[in-house]
Amino acid sequence: MLGNSFGHAFKITTFGESHGKALGVIIDGCPAGLTIDLEFIQKELTRRRPGQSKIVTQRKEKDEFEILSGVFEGQSTGTPISMIIWNEDARSKDYSHILDKFRPSHADFTYQNKYGIRDYRGGGRSSARETAARVAAGAIAKQLLAHKGVQITAYVSQVGHLKMETSYQDLDLTKVESTAIRCPDLDMAEKMIDHIAQIKKEGDTIGGVVEAVVQGCPVGLGEPVFHKLHADLAGAMLGINAAKGFEYGSGFNGVEMRGSEHNDVFFNEDGQIKTKTNYSGGIQGGISNGMDIYFRVAFKPVATIIPAQNSVDKSGKAVEITGRGRHDPCVVPRAVPIVEAMAALVLADHLLMNRGAKL
Amino acid sequence: MLGNSFGHAFKITTFGESHGKALGVIIDGCPAGLTIDLEFIQKELTRRRPGQSKIVTQRKEKDEFEILSGVFEGQSTGTPISMIIWNEDARSKDYSHILDKFRPSHADFTYQNKYGIRDYRGGGRSSARETAARVAAGAIAKQLLAHKGVQITAYVSQVGHLKMETSYQDLDLTKVESTAIRCPDLDMAEKMIDHIAQIKKEGDTIGGVVEAVVQGCPVGLGEPVFHKLHADLAGAMLGINAAKGFEYGSGFNGVEMRGSEHNDVFFNEDGQIKTKTNYSGGIQGGISNGMDIYFRVAFKPVATIIPAQNSVDKSGKAVEITGRGRHDPCVVPRAVPIVEAMAALVLADHLLMNRGAKL
Amino acid sequence: MLGNSFGHAFKITTFGESHGKALGVIIDGCPAGLTIDLEFIQKELTRRRPGQSKIVTQRKEKDEFEILSGVFEGQSTGTPISMIIWNEDARSKDYSHILDKFRPSHADFTYQNKYGIRDYRGGGRSSARETAARVAAGAIAKQLLAHKGVQITAYVSQVGHLKMETSYQDLDLTKVESTAIRCPDLDMAEKMIDHIAQIKKEGDTIGGVVEAVVQGCPVGLGEPVFHKLHADLAGAMLGINAAKGFEYGSGFNGVEMRGSEHNDVFFNEDGQIKTKTNYSGGIQGGISNGMDIYFRVAFKPVATIIPAQNSVDKSGKAVEITGRGRHDPCVVPRAVPIVEAMAALVLADHLLMNRGAKL
Amino acid sequence: MLGNSFGHAFKITTFGESHGKALGVIIDGCPAGLTIDLEFIQKELTRRRPGQSKIVTQRKEKDEFEILSGVFEGQSTGTPISMIIWNEDARSKDYSHILDKFRPSHADFTYQNKYGIRDYRGGGRSSARETAARVAAGAIAKQLLAHKGVQITAYVSQVGHLKMETSYQDLDLTKVESTAIRCPDLDMAEKMIDHIAQIKKEGDTIGGVVEAVVQGCPVGLGEPVFHKLHADLAGAMLGINAAKGFEYGSGFNGVEMRGSEHNDVFFNEDGQIKTKTNYSGGIQGGISNGMDIYFRVAFKPVATIIPAQNSVDKSGKAVEITGRGRHDPCVVPRAVPIVEAMAALVLADHLLMNRGAKL
Repeated sequence: MLGNSFGHAFKITTFGESHGKALGVIIDGCPAGLTIDLEFIQKELTRRRPGQSKIVTQRKEKDEFEILSGVFEGQSTGTPISMIIWNEDARSKDYSHILDKFRPSHADFTYQNKYGIRDYRGGGRSSARETAARVAAGAIAKQLLAHKGVQITAYVSQVGHLKMETSYQDLDLTKVESTAIRCPDLDMAEKMIDHIAQIKKEGDTIGGVVEAVVQGCPVGLGEPVFHKLHADLAGAMLGINAAKGFEYGSGFNGVEMRGSEHNDVFFNEDGQIKTKTNYSGGIQGGISNGMDIYFRVAFKPVATIIPAQNSVDKSGKAVEITGRGRHDPCVVPRAVPIVEAMAALVLADHLLMNRGAKL
Repeated sequence: MLGNSFGHAFKITTFGESHGKALGVIIDGCPAGLTIDLEFIQKELTRRRPGQSKIVTQRKEKDEFEILSGVFEGQSTGTPISMIIWNEDARSKDYSHILDKFRPSHADFTYQNKYGIRDYRGGGRSSARETAARVAAGAIAKQLLAHKGVQITAYVSQVGHLKMETSYQDLDLTKVESTAIRCPDLDMAEKMIDHIAQIKKEGDTIGGVVEAVVQGCPVGLGEPVFHKLHADLAGAMLGINAAKGFEYGSGFNGVEMRGSEHNDVFFNEDGQIKTKTNYSGGIQGGISNGMDIYFRVAFKPVATIIPAQNSVDKSGKAVEITGRGRHDPCVVPRAVPIVEAMAALVLADHLLMNRGAKL
Repeated sequence: MLGNSFGHAFKITTFGESHGKALGVIIDGCPAGLTIDLEFIQKELTRRRPGQSKIVTQRKEKDEFEILSGVFEGQSTGTPISMIIWNEDARSKDYSHILDKFRPSHADFTYQNKYGIRDYRGGGRSSARETAARVAAGAIAKQLLAHKGVQITAYVSQVGHLKMETSYQDLDLTKVESTAIRCPDLDMAEKMIDHIAQIKKEGDTIGGVVEAVVQGCPVGLGEPVFHKLHADLAGAMLGINAAKGFEYGSGFNGVEMRGSEHNDVFFNEDGQIKTKTNYSGGIQGGISNGMDIYFRVAFKPVATIIPAQNSVDKSGKAVEITGRGRHDPCVVPRAVPIVEAMAALVLADHLLMNRGAKL
Repeated sequence: MLGNSFGHAFKITTFGESHGKALGVIIDGCPAGLTIDLEFIQKELTRRRPGQSKIVTQRKEKDEFEILSGVFEGQSTGTPISMIIWNEDARSKDYSHILDKFRPSHADFTYQNKYGIRDYRGGGRSSARETAARVAAGAIAKQLLAHKGVQITAYVSQVGHLKMETSYQDLDLTKVESTAIRCPDLDMAEKMIDHIAQIKKEGDTIGGVVEAVVQGCPVGLGEPVFHKLHADLAGAMLGINAAKGFEYGSGFNGVEMRGSEHNDVFFNEDGQIKTKTNYSGGIQGGISNGMDIYFRVAFKPVATIIPAQNSVDKSGKAVEITGRGRHDPCVVPRAVPIVEAMAALVLADHLLMNRGAKL
């Protein structure tokens, strides 16, 4: 019942279906006086939109946005900022053949059962198209964060079995946007692109991992005990379509470590307290400690594939489903800006909540 | 600022510090008419409390609870259910030596910076002792769920490098409580216990993984798009002390799979629609599909160790810290009931929220 | 920071400024399967819009709405219902003369101080124009309530000193819409209209009272202790522009009554428990008891007047302000549909929240 | 389902029944570093407790409180502050005779219907005893506000037909606590006390009005559009047991005024912008303007009376009810500290929320 809002102090509410009139988002809680860079918002939306490269879906959506309220003479006014992205390439006929059928590993079956009705066109509300609204809102959160010196960068670290083992510290993150796959290791990027191209040719899909790093985060963000900074990041990331897992800092690998090895020893560097290692991933006791925050998000292979699949329809009758829509062979390159946007929303929210911490 | 409440329709608020007078929890939203089994609540608390076995901390806390409100003549009345757990074994002197020091990978540094003040005794609010309140609340959530046929079982699947590869479907989950480590594979359990005993002897600690499975969950729980059932589970699990990662269904392994392999094909079994495989982990589009929900939570090694460690104090001066407190060499056996409790809180919340889905 | 959302289970978020591109509202929590009557929504908006009669402002706004999401094939789908009302008659030049001036008893001074910036055009977000979004949302809440047999009717009972003393029970509420003032006592209505016309001629404004009655409300709505049904109604009504007071049941008059006189005696009428009197106003202990709910809302005179007034500008310099805009001489006739809408939003919210009351 | 929490940034959750083990409250969001004056909290509780004077109920409750968490070495720590008030004078037998009966104008009927079960002892959760928890929390909110220079004073202005017409500006508010009725006009106070004594002798009850004034409130508190400062005050006041109405500033009297008369003209007094009159009651556009905030709350006569009354029981059978419990003949003297507490909670909440207004 309250699934369409995210955040507490910097709160967004999104709306819209894949093939409805429009998508949109309202931001409630953006402080007044923030200069809003419209071009930056468009740039972020363009990073997410279909048709950017040959390894993503070729649907034609411009994803141009329009601000309807909350910005006056170039600045936020403290009132709700609303943004609309009109749907253009709706092609509803593409979906009529699956009107009553439940596509495997899609949300068709669960929406139908939960609500008793569903907008079957392109997945309706369950479509990843909804994330465009999040990216628009995240672009404003990023501007608020940039104002405070916080920087978020995500990139692809794995596609199928192709896994880049390099740490973000040894990567040149300025190269993320230079390849279609958004992997800063250019050799690996090429392999990943080839791999996806091959899978696409087969009408199949493949999973991947997106990693992200937050730099410049001030000490003190995170609300114990239930809104620990990493808990909110986990909830945010798993809320992205196709996400299956989240880990931060040492993550699942930390399981095999000893305490004596995993503990991050504090030291004083010119008056600033830092840790020698950062297995904590920049968060201790749920609160940022000033070190880099980094985390990884696992994405499953996209459920839409070309080969015929068995399934059932609403009446429970066995049916066959064949993929026809234009879809992504691998979700991760387009997931990069979404991961960044959701991280920005979490951090902006905590930045504002933290204003209440002390007298 | 709102970090101490969890849930929306079945909402809990916890309070209390490790060495304060008491811990407690208020449940707001438990439907009236639920018969409350007090012995069951105590049993759950006892599963979590220290001193249960030789591989957990030997602190003496009975963790007996008292209900102060919301239950009348054995039933919930619809008013807030409050439960108190008095602190007994407070031994504040154990902690005076770390009054001004920041223990590595604890919350000392971040609390001090966020709030400008902290209750240094035993970690104060950041202590895992707070989870006793969650377990008490979770025990009531479990009773609500049991009434609807939903069952949650967690167990230890990994300690350090010792990893049980068997799926929950091939395990006898009734054996979970029969070993101190709460691993249903009895051979593996013995190895894990020996391993922990050895590490404890060295004054060190080790991480582990807790897996959980939810059986009997009705179709329809989960609120798209930001409160997907698995997103709320992820947020809940990462909110547990020492948790570093979460994955559900195919999880991080799903990354390497093809869509054609990962898709869960629907079929009709005597009028009930099921899926042949369950890589989705019982959740599609963020909504439960009636299949088993299963997930894994990674826990890091406990930060409190016996060997001396370098650190700094509040003034930034270099200091040495030596472990003295009684602590857990591995958190996972005691994390099992906490994982179950948090899962129960998420599911009870979604069960009630789902009442608003249809006209 | 969270001022733009209302409700918990049936939650709305509004956005938009008086002279921005558009107003709008998102409803999150409308149950799926509700047939949406678009004409009814337009009819409600038309009741609120300017230019309906000679005693309201002559601004030209059609207040036509557009649904962007959440409704499919005529029914709610359980996803957010978003509605947009485009601004047409923006005439920003009308307001340039007050760019830096603080109009007496408007929100200019407080917005400027709170936010450090304000959209001065027509009051921006503080304009009563924002209530169009509430009326649109309220029209859907009304449809949900109608489905459950709940009916809300508001009317004008006082304009300045002209006060109708008749109880709603002795009035023919079907006549409310038959006069421009929306007072069901037709003689009194004529006097009120004449009075307003005279005041308008003088360039002045006058206050009034709107009464409302809710019929057919089921027993059990209201959440003790802080979201008592009447507490939420009070908060909702005082949230309407220009509202200064709220009373329900016996209200301020009840102050002078004895308990023996004020108590509503229960009796059994053919198996249904009713009360002989209804000083409680249909709500006892914060929960509806099945009797009619009735309440009154006081509105101050509109602050925009034609005669010159002294004031100060942003720099604190003394200035003179002269009314130029087209404004309402009395707010109450247009407040009637707004009072109904806000009451509908409160009741729909409580209707859904009450689904969690019992096992 | 969420009726037991109040506030957003300074949030309280109360629990407890009249004749259960204890009442209590958790404050989540009190900033760290506030020095907590325990004696002041007790003094506030003592102002509310029964048995203070001959015109209030003679029940014996000491209303002593205990802080269980959130305060360390005399200061708030930023973690939840929990307070318990144990019930002592529970005398459950007093209520057994009304076990199945619905007392007129009490919450018996509505609780029974809403929840299907109720704690009939002394009204259970619906008892005004619950407000002790609010007063305890309000006492901490007052300390936070005092730190910022905000002062709240409430007093009785009317009992039955005895109405004090003097404005708060012409009263010596330091005299409020000098009479049992808490009316600062000492002559009127005596009349009120005599009147209540007479009504008590008759076994009857009478209503009254509490007025309150907030002084020293900074400009900028209040969140448009749904959490206007006065809307939150209205919701808070109507949430107090027996409250029937609320008005602020000119209130219901403002209805008869012209705009030209009602508008509060701004002027510059030594660099501070003030208004000449204050019909706005210190709030414009829902946001405080720095002038005094004042409002009035109407309370109905207490429903518990001595004479026999007709009613029905759970089965719908006609029964007779006779008052036996010790009750208040008039609620207003004890309502004074409750009105102050609720006002303090609203203002503390808005004080913290306002920290997010600007960049």
